[in-house]
Amino acid sequence: MNPQSYIQTLTSAVEQLSEASSYTGLCHNHRQGQPLPSAEQLTRIVNLARAILFPGYFGNSTVNAQTVTYHIGVNVEQLYHLLVNQIQAGLAFDLSEDSGDAETLCEQARLLGAQFIARLPEMRRTLATDVEAAYNGDPAATNYGEVICCYPAIRAISNYRIAHELLTLGVPLIPRIITEMAHSETGIDIHPGASIGHHFTIDHGTGVVIGETCIIGNNVKLYQGVTLGAKSFPLDEDGNPIKGIPRHPILEDDVIVYSNATILGRITIGRGATVGGNIWVTEDVPAGERIVQRRG
Amino acid sequence: MNPQSYIQTLTSAVEQLSEASSYTGLCHNHRQGQPLPSAEQLTRIVNLARAILFPGYFGNSTVNAQTVTYHIGVNVEQLYHLLVNQIQAGLAFDLSEDSGDAETLCEQARLLGAQFIARLPEMRRTLATDVEAAYNGDPAATNYGEVICCYPAIRAISNYRIAHELLTLGVPLIPRIITEMAHSETGIDIHPGASIGHHFTIDHGTGVVIGETCIIGNNVKLYQGVTLGAKSFPLDEDGNPIKGIPRHPILEDDVIVYSNATILGRITIGRGATVGGNIWVTEDVPAGERIVQRRG
Amino acid sequence: MNPQSYIQTLTSAVEQLSEASSYTGLCHNHRQGQPLPSAEQLTRIVNLARAILFPGYFGNSTVNAQTVTYHIGVNVEQLYHLLVNQIQAGLAFDLSEDSGDAETLCEQARLLGAQFIARLPEMRRTLATDVEAAYNGDPAATNYGEVICCYPAIRAISNYRIAHELLTLGVPLIPRIITEMAHSETGIDIHPGASIGHHFTIDHGTGVVIGETCIIGNNVKLYQGVTLGAKSFPLDEDGNPIKGIPRHPILEDDVIVYSNATILGRITIGRGATVGGNIWVTEDVPAGERIVQRRG
Amino acid sequence: MNPQSYIQTLTSAVEQLSEASSYTGLCHNHRQGQPLPSAEQLTRIVNLARAILFPGYFGNSTVNAQTVTYHIGVNVEQLYHLLVNQIQAGLAFDLSEDSGDAETLCEQARLLGAQFIARLPEMRRTLATDVEAAYNGDPAATNYGEVICCYPAIRAISNYRIAHELLTLGVPLIPRIITEMAHSETGIDIHPGASIGHHFTIDHGTGVVIGETCIIGNNVKLYQGVTLGAKSFPLDEDGNPIKGIPRHPILEDDVIVYSNATILGRITIGRGATVGGNIWVTEDVPAGERIVQRRG
Amino acid sequence: MNPQSYIQTLTSAVEQLSEASSYTGLCHNHRQGQPLPSAEQLTRIVNLARAILFPGYFGNSTVNAQTVTYHIGVNVEQLYHLLVNQIQAGLAFDLSEDSGDAETLCEQARLLGAQFIARLPEMRRTLATDVEAAYNGDPAATNYGEVICCYPAIRAISNYRIAHELLTLGVPLIPRIITEMAHSETGIDIHPGASIGHHFTIDHGTGVVIGETCIIGNNVKLYQGVTLGAKSFPLDEDGNPIKGIPRHPILEDDVIVYSNATILGRITIGRGATVGGNIWVTEDVPAGERIVQRRG
Amino acid sequence: MNPQSYIQTLTSAVEQLSEASSYTGLCHNHRQGQPLPSAEQLTRIVNLARAILFPGYFGNSTVNAQTVTYHIGVNVEQLYHLLVNQIQAGLAFDLSEDSGDAETLCEQARLLGAQFIARLPEMRRTLATDVEAAYNGDPAATNYGEVICCYPAIRAISNYRIAHELLTLGVPLIPRIITEMAHSETGIDIHPGASIGHHFTIDHGTGVVIGETCIIGNNVKLYQGVTLGAKSFPLDEDGNPIKGIPRHPILEDDVIVYSNATILGRITIGRGATVGGNIWVTEDVPAGERIVQRRG
Repeated sequence: MNPQSYIQTLTSAVEQLSEASSYTGLCHNHRQGQPLPSAEQLTRIVNLARAILFPGYFGNSTVNAQTVTYHIGVNVEQLYHLLVNQIQAGLAFDLSEDSGDAETLCEQARLLGAQFIARLPEMRRTLATDVEAAYNGDPAATNYGEVICCYPAIRAISNYRIAHELLTLGVPLIPRIITEMAHSETGIDIHPGASIGHHFTIDHGTGVVIGETCIIGNNVKLYQGVTLGAKSFPLDEDGNPIKGIPRHPILEDDVIVYSNATILGRITIGRGATVGGNIWVTEDVPAGERIVQRRG
Repeated sequence: MNPQSYIQTLTSAVEQLSEASSYTGLCHNHRQGQPLPSAEQLTRIVNLARAILFPGYFGNSTVNAQTVTYHIGVNVEQLYHLLVNQIQAGLAFDLSEDSGDAETLCEQARLLGAQFIARLPEMRRTLATDVEAAYNGDPAATNYGEVICCYPAIRAISNYRIAHELLTLGVPLIPRIITEMAHSETGIDIHPGASIGHHFTIDHGTGVVIGETCIIGNNVKLYQGVTLGAKSFPLDEDGNPIKGIPRHPILEDDVIVYSNATILGRITIGRGATVGGNIWVTEDVPAGERIVQRRG
Repeated sequence: MNPQSYIQTLTSAVEQLSEASSYTGLCHNHRQGQPLPSAEQLTRIVNLARAILFPGYFGNSTVNAQTVTYHIGVNVEQLYHLLVNQIQAGLAFDLSEDSGDAETLCEQARLLGAQFIARLPEMRRTLATDVEAAYNGDPAATNYGEVICCYPAIRAISNYRIAHELLTLGVPLIPRIITEMAHSETGIDIHPGASIGHHFTIDHGTGVVIGETCIIGNNVKLYQGVTLGAKSFPLDEDGNPIKGIPRHPILEDDVIVYSNATILGRITIGRGATVGGNIWVTEDVPAGERIVQRRG
Repeated sequence: MNPQSYIQTLTSAVEQLSEASSYTGLCHNHRQGQPLPSAEQLTRIVNLARAILFPGYFGNSTVNAQTVTYHIGVNVEQLYHLLVNQIQAGLAFDLSEDSGDAETLCEQARLLGAQFIARLPEMRRTLATDVEAAYNGDPAATNYGEVICCYPAIRAISNYRIAHELLTLGVPLIPRIITEMAHSETGIDIHPGASIGHHFTIDHGTGVVIGETCIIGNNVKLYQGVTLGAKSFPLDEDGNPIKGIPRHPILEDDVIVYSNATILGRITIGRGATVGGNIWVTEDVPAGERIVQRRG
Repeated sequence: MNPQSYIQTLTSAVEQLSEASSYTGLCHNHRQGQPLPSAEQLTRIVNLARAILFPGYFGNSTVNAQTVTYHIGVNVEQLYHLLVNQIQAGLAFDLSEDSGDAETLCEQARLLGAQFIARLPEMRRTLATDVEAAYNGDPAATNYGEVICCYPAIRAISNYRIAHELLTLGVPLIPRIITEMAHSETGIDIHPGASIGHHFTIDHGTGVVIGETCIIGNNVKLYQGVTLGAKSFPLDEDGNPIKGIPRHPILEDDVIVYSNATILGRITIGRGATVGGNIWVTEDVPAGERIVQRRG
Repeated sequence: MNPQSYIQTLTSAVEQLSEASSYTGLCHNHRQGQPLPSAEQLTRIVNLARAILFPGYFGNSTVNAQTVTYHIGVNVEQLYHLLVNQIQAGLAFDLSEDSGDAETLCEQARLLGAQFIARLPEMRRTLATDVEAAYNGDPAATNYGEVICCYPAIRAISNYRIAHELLTLGVPLIPRIITEMAHSETGIDIHPGASIGHHFTIDHGTGVVIGETCIIGNNVKLYQGVTLGAKSFPLDEDGNPIKGIPRHPILEDDVIVYSNATILGRITIGRGATVGGNIWVTEDVPAGERIVQRRG
């Protein structure tokens, strides 16, 4: 095969791949002048949020009582600017070229960004309870610092709480990217639509799945490999799943679910119940009850 | 301990670690003048392939009908050059210094690279069906864009389909590195040797294992934690496993396997069968049947 | 909302987030002049250690018998300097501003760093057995090179063996960060406190958890999703878990545990026993026995 | 000095440096939501322009007749987007917060960016003559490729021609930054306001200064250290220099100026004249004349 | 030449280059545990200093009255830490392994770093006068912003003023590296030992040299290519130049020196004198006088 | 102007710029499969050479008698590989697609690379004399370390000596790029073809030009702004300059040339002569003579 024929092979592939019919539905029709969702920017956003929520643990800087305001000030401002850009990218993602005007999108993004920033203090209060729960629930934890620095649960839950706020504010796409970043990093897959109370913790975590319409109370603890999923879902007339129907479990306060348990459907695990490992639960569990797998 | 004694400790460790007998079997005997397999280059290769297959979703560029040819043209050309380099690295990986000549390796790599490029249009057609299956199978999916951008299944399946083509063309080592990159990113471990039909999807995905000799039909759906593995494998006279024997399951069209199910051995899950979560299957399942775990 | 009011929102959030009471327990009180634990530096440390232990497989360089000493020499020296810095960061992590003096910390870190370097040759000998076990245990493995380059088990076990040495030497925090880096990369979560013999291997690996007080013999093999965890743990008078009590399983030599099995508590799995997939084990298993899940 | 007193020194410096009165005139009052001029972005802009004008010489890509359109297409599109952003930054640079609206600025920048792109083909035609002049004027030049790759004159003149177009279009600030980048890289300082004909070349170049209101004809050649400057400039009533008055020399076609010559004021060096090295010229030089320094 | 002989050539070169006698005087005997001078760190130091002195012009951040304290706070703190590290590198540069102890060096560096930070406010006041002088002296300058952003003189003078403070505090080596960084960037070579008053400016600047023992008054203006150098210097008994003797010119207030003039030796250019371009001055020039080159 | 018309403007510019006739002579006809000259790679090459020649001064590593062999070994090997690649790029630069074969080019590059490496020890011996000359000639120099770290002359002369060796070996293009890199960094422009003896030094250096056919003896010292250039050059029948004719000055041993002097043509400055600053010399200067500018 001579150089010329390689070039022909390439050129022919380019032609086929550039034909509009070949990428229908697979090509993003980007709106001119709008930012694109960017994994790199979102990584910086998450890192800034972590640096603000847990001062001195993330980022390269040393923080003390005299300088903490400087650091949080700079980080909040950078977070705001990056976030406005990515919110705008999310808002523009599905718009056709001629809907709305760019100025309005930008203004909307700035408003949503400011609203998010205003919720950071409350978010820190909740995350403090998650750190406490992780520390108290693990005899291997030597101090809060280790939990904040190392525990995948804290990373996954931080991303979830950030993403959940953004979803609640109405930001499209971006929240899901943020939780998928944590999914990739930790193996913990929490849909940003789930609702989760305080003092929430997950031990080890790889393989955990928490579905879109889950409702989780306070003081709940999950172990690795736990699925809180949908059993089945109704289809519409065209045979497609109907979106947005509650289809995932409700876990009331103080529930514990051990490793690799699978809980499916809109059922309720009652207050203080315990679900043993490696089992398959598709019906309600009364409050306080303890269900386990029979010995293999 | 004075500075001098630290240096002696280091020097002594260096001497021991540089003795040829200490690294037998652990050292790569690289062939002079050949490229090395490079995770960084392979990451760029995968990103370029994604940018070509799903124009406008990956990479920093905005694409429209007028400019799509430019972008695909440049990306195809860069992909080709990087790929030729890494194919050559794969070919050279196990060669001794005196086998074959460098020019031939290089020519072979260029031919294989061009053959891969020629298959990209077909690969896009198949991936389009995977995107469709992921969207249709998940009530939480709001549009194709979200699926392409965020869903780990799409990332893992893309890498698999790229790696499978390379393996089919006879490229050593590189395909496995590509699927392991997706494994690390998504927790989904698909061996490049597996054979997988169209409209394939995996929900959530963490912990999925698909073995080397699996044969998967069309319209198959797996959930997180599913293993399609080998039950046991025959040993040769020296007690080592015999390579290449079919030992993983066959899943016919329209099969669904729920989370954390384990299917082992060269068995067949018949057309349209459903395998429930958290169970252990080592025998054939007839077409259309539904097997589940008994309540814990 | 005008620009001024955005600035007020931000400024107000900064004030709340900078109030000392709001970050109690969540802020790292860094000791002036000491290094910080750094994921970036630790990544470089792990990469250098891999390049030393498996010459020619990691890093960009070509290695041959004439030049191997140069490469190992430079890598050992860089590893030493980076490690001393991060050991010092670990030692300083929980010290209050006025305990001990900086010079002593630094001297201690240099001593620990040199002791770690001195153990590298032994560490390579053990890892060679792990590579052998992975190769022999997988019919899909085509050669040692593929195992070293691609197998997540080798990455996770390397990090564990590095971290375990550091923990044994008394280095705080850093070992856990190193194993969590492998956890994120591979989905395999091995606590650096566990004790693991030679010829250890893990197939696929995603979802594996090995707890702090596990004792694992020689020639042990685990599959993906296996948990070696604690069943429950005694609380102290304040209701907090008592740290450091042996609470994880003992696996004697030649044990195999299949995928998604969960083994909990200070029980013993006897020499040569086999634990089937997807089961839940909380009692001793006698040597040579084989326990499996009943068909679902 | 204890740690506390260091912190006090720092805090006190921060306070002084943050007082508004201390940075009057030295602080950039940035307009919310507008981009900032960025040396990094402008470097990318210049590199893209060079890659478009001289295909295959700059950038990492190989170009051939089949693929040149792809490369130029992608580069032109990226150049356009980056340039619009930096033009907008330039336009916003001196605006107060309440002048004009953001949408208008953006629209204006997009128009100017497109106008610049439309002039690239003409710019290439002119630069081709500069390359020809550099090659013909230097016996040490072995081919056009060497001139394009290595000669500082080509870099400085390219930046000048880009900057001059932008200035002519009315873009503030950015043109000057672009020529100062070349000044730093080559030691050749050409003000973007100067007017320069075709077949222009500069040998060696370090120390050359070409002032804002210079007019330079075709086929002019300068050597290193040549200054085309202002002799003096009239002051306004407040003693400040009056801006924009023609005050630099006019060099007609075919003029040569040897090294370190200094030509000052609105004088004319006539067609075909030669100015010798190390001399100081403040009066007109007739066409065809040759002036030199007397022997030292 | 076969591969083996290449390796022998390399190995032989390595041996010769590693022989101690071959690098006597050319090898840095680094003191264990001390930082190295780092061009990269010093670049960051200079950029931080610029960002502090001219808020909003350098660095990526937007600054306004509400947030300026945050930015200056963070920048001052980072500057302090980087500077302490590089001061320590400078102090350690020429020490033998056994002189002084590391703790003392570190403490000394922290003190010097704090003293430098304390002088920043005064440094900004002086630089403000330099910016004013550059603006007033150049009809081509459109505003202060352009001067601060683009003018090489401001970059060179900023580096000089930073380096001069460090030299005055007694920091070795580092000041010279900082002024050489500006020399490379701008072609303006100011020795950090020179003494320079307020309202100092240099037009264009390439080729300017200001020697170690120069004394320059207020309101002095230089043009490109001006040398303020030494005429000759006395040698000691061994024929080596005696260090530290005043040997460069004194320029009193309000002096102007035009392009490419060379002023050599410990002479005085009197208040308000003007030195024309391209001339060679080795004797005192009385106050108010104007000397020029005769026409070539 | 609507979005569509912007796209048309861009598309039209792309079409014009992609027409083959528009880039004749300005486009590099790259030879398939060959490396491209790369400023980034050449920068690494120069940095590695500096790190080898002056151990411990360049690069991040600490070097001592025990470890120097490791560092030089690794650096020599990396230098060799990078250099072979760039030599090959240089050799391929002007070849047409069908001349010679790739294997031969590669083999030739490896041979030239090895020959260059073999000359490094001699190169270090010569550079040692240049460092000595710079130190002895400058009262401001406090030690050899400062000279090696900071002095632009050492950077420029190192690049020249590297480039000169490569040119002597017959490598095209690359030598000139290397000296132009130093030209950009230091303002000192030495053509790689010049011949320069030992103990060579340049003070300050900005603006120095040393032409292709210069011959410079031992112990020569130049100051900033000195030109050693060509006076005029004979043209061939087509009016183009004839290449390769000796046309630059010869400076015999012990010559000093002061700042901004211009010496032109194939003249000889005799042993021990001194040329004063700011003068223009076009005729021989006898040995020992001292010529100066008359007072302005």
